[in-house]
Amino acid sequence: MYFIGIDIGGMSIKSGIVDESGKIIKSSIIKTEKIADTEQIKLIAKDVLKLIDESGIDKKEIKGIGCGCPSPCGENGIMSYAANLKWRNTPLQKLLEELTGLPTKIANDADVAALAEAKFGSAKKYDTIVMLTIGTGVGGGVVINKKLYTGPNGYANELGHAVIRYNGIKCGCGKKGCLEQYASASALIRQTKEAMLKDKNSLMWQFVDNDIEKVNGITSFACAKQGDKTANRVVNKFCDYIATGIVNYCAIFRPNAIILGGAISKEGEYLTKKLRRIAKKYEYGYPNTMKVDIITAELKNDAGIIGAASLIM
Amino acid sequence: MYFIGIDIGGMSIKSGIVDESGKIIKSSIIKTEKIADTEQIKLIAKDVLKLIDESGIDKKEIKGIGCGCPSPCGENGIMSYAANLKWRNTPLQKLLEELTGLPTKIANDADVAALAEAKFGSAKKYDTIVMLTIGTGVGGGVVINKKLYTGPNGYANELGHAVIRYNGIKCGCGKKGCLEQYASASALIRQTKEAMLKDKNSLMWQFVDNDIEKVNGITSFACAKQGDKTANRVVNKFCDYIATGIVNYCAIFRPNAIILGGAISKEGEYLTKKLRRIAKKYEYGYPNTMKVDIITAELKNDAGIIGAASLIM
Repeated sequence: MYFIGIDIGGMSIKSGIVDESGKIIKSSIIKTEKIADTEQIKLIAKDVLKLIDESGIDKKEIKGIGCGCPSPCGENGIMSYAANLKWRNTPLQKLLEELTGLPTKIANDADVAALAEAKFGSAKKYDTIVMLTIGTGVGGGVVINKKLYTGPNGYANELGHAVIRYNGIKCGCGKKGCLEQYASASALIRQTKEAMLKDKNSLMWQFVDNDIEKVNGITSFACAKQGDKTANRVVNKFCDYIATGIVNYCAIFRPNAIILGGAISKEGEYLTKKLRRIAKKYEYGYPNTMKVDIITAELKNDAGIIGAASLIM
Repeated sequence: MYFIGIDIGGMSIKSGIVDESGKIIKSSIIKTEKIADTEQIKLIAKDVLKLIDESGIDKKEIKGIGCGCPSPCGENGIMSYAANLKWRNTPLQKLLEELTGLPTKIANDADVAALAEAKFGSAKKYDTIVMLTIGTGVGGGVVINKKLYTGPNGYANELGHAVIRYNGIKCGCGKKGCLEQYASASALIRQTKEAMLKDKNSLMWQFVDNDIEKVNGITSFACAKQGDKTANRVVNKFCDYIATGIVNYCAIFRPNAIILGGAISKEGEYLTKKLRRIAKKYEYGYPNTMKVDIITAELKNDAGIIGAASLIM
């Protein structure tokens, strides 16, 4: 049996045929166009049918389609609101089923990434995990006993939108002090710039050719590794914020492991070592309970396709 | 079929025979003694056997025992640490099974209260709920599809120990800024005293006969209802903290409902109306998702026995 995974992103839409072991057999990519949702979905369906056709796999051997979306997704198969795509109330499941003739399930992309790691990635030895995807925002996914938890209506796991600093920085979601405002790559860039403006001698200035607009999520990490004290302070503070989120989700879910995804996870052990040390200080895990592991995701760019395909396995 | 529910508290230990409809047929109560855990458990088992004997119900008609404990409880049936009782690593399940000959399950008392409300209380029409028990501390319970979520090792749902104010008030758990430090009855008492010291004309002084040590969880609510402005500010701020917790758990679990338990829930609609208004301001629920209901628990003192019995239904 084979499974189609679709990963809808703001720049491109990737589709792949995945086998039962989570391996991508064949994949395809199309550009995300600035067109109406229904028109875009026609192009996606066309691409998927072409992919199946070219693979030589009998359509009967394909169990169905799973699709990861940059939007909360209801159990009813509707993408409620994809800010980046400007799609609202898109009946994605129904449209894909009609256009391809294949049973389809959809879910939020952060949820799908968590499922991919839990089934075939760095978390495959764990039953229950919380994944924090740290990118422009902070996304979240929760897998309980190898099954995605999405809440009764499919809208759970907005883990970046829990308040960690009462009355803190205003968030795009309407609240103040959400985790996302402190522990996302965007937050790190803001924190890096603030620190640079206070220390004109920091190595970070050299790193960005004296152009503060070139600061990105790597700037502080790269310079901290080279011994720059200001960069080190930025990294440590940023890790303290991430650790606050981690320790909160340990208290709430007490999972087997917390998985870190998104661009920041490229920092690997350098990051997780710091996080484990901070989290330990905050006493995550009672003296008599099992500790929660903190690890990084490993499927990277393939997580979207593999996780989406996992929705229908 | 009948089910035994045991509710272990710091002052007393209640046991009851519960039927399939969640009704307590017969109950018993013994004092919590200052003795070793194994000795106390012998007294509990004796009380349960006597209760069954006096009820005239055939022991074969009793499916087993469920027990709610003031401690995190592992899947292994061990109470890891009950601070109030000073019990550590107590193999409660094994001991009760040996002493009574009945299959036994144990769980944390806040979890058990949530299960009681979800099965037989104010939340019985909902599948997935988060319960916040607001007393001396803030306890939590999560029921997903009518089943208790306790995490892979049984230690989940420390919902009062998620940080809502980064670097805030030091908590007994070792962290800083936990929800419990702002939204518990203890926190309310502290907040009430602070406000009274700043306003010597507040009606609250009269209410406590000018003795600030008489302040309790009712003081501010009672005086706010009588129009005292300072008391009203205390209540509104306190509700803002609870609402922060509520909105966080809506983002994380997106349950059907949030249930408020503990002494504070006696404020009923007066409290939940305020909370709904504040929560709405914080945009809980995306425009296109179903709103999460906010209601109070209804089983009160019986929740412990009924919820414990529900563990083995």
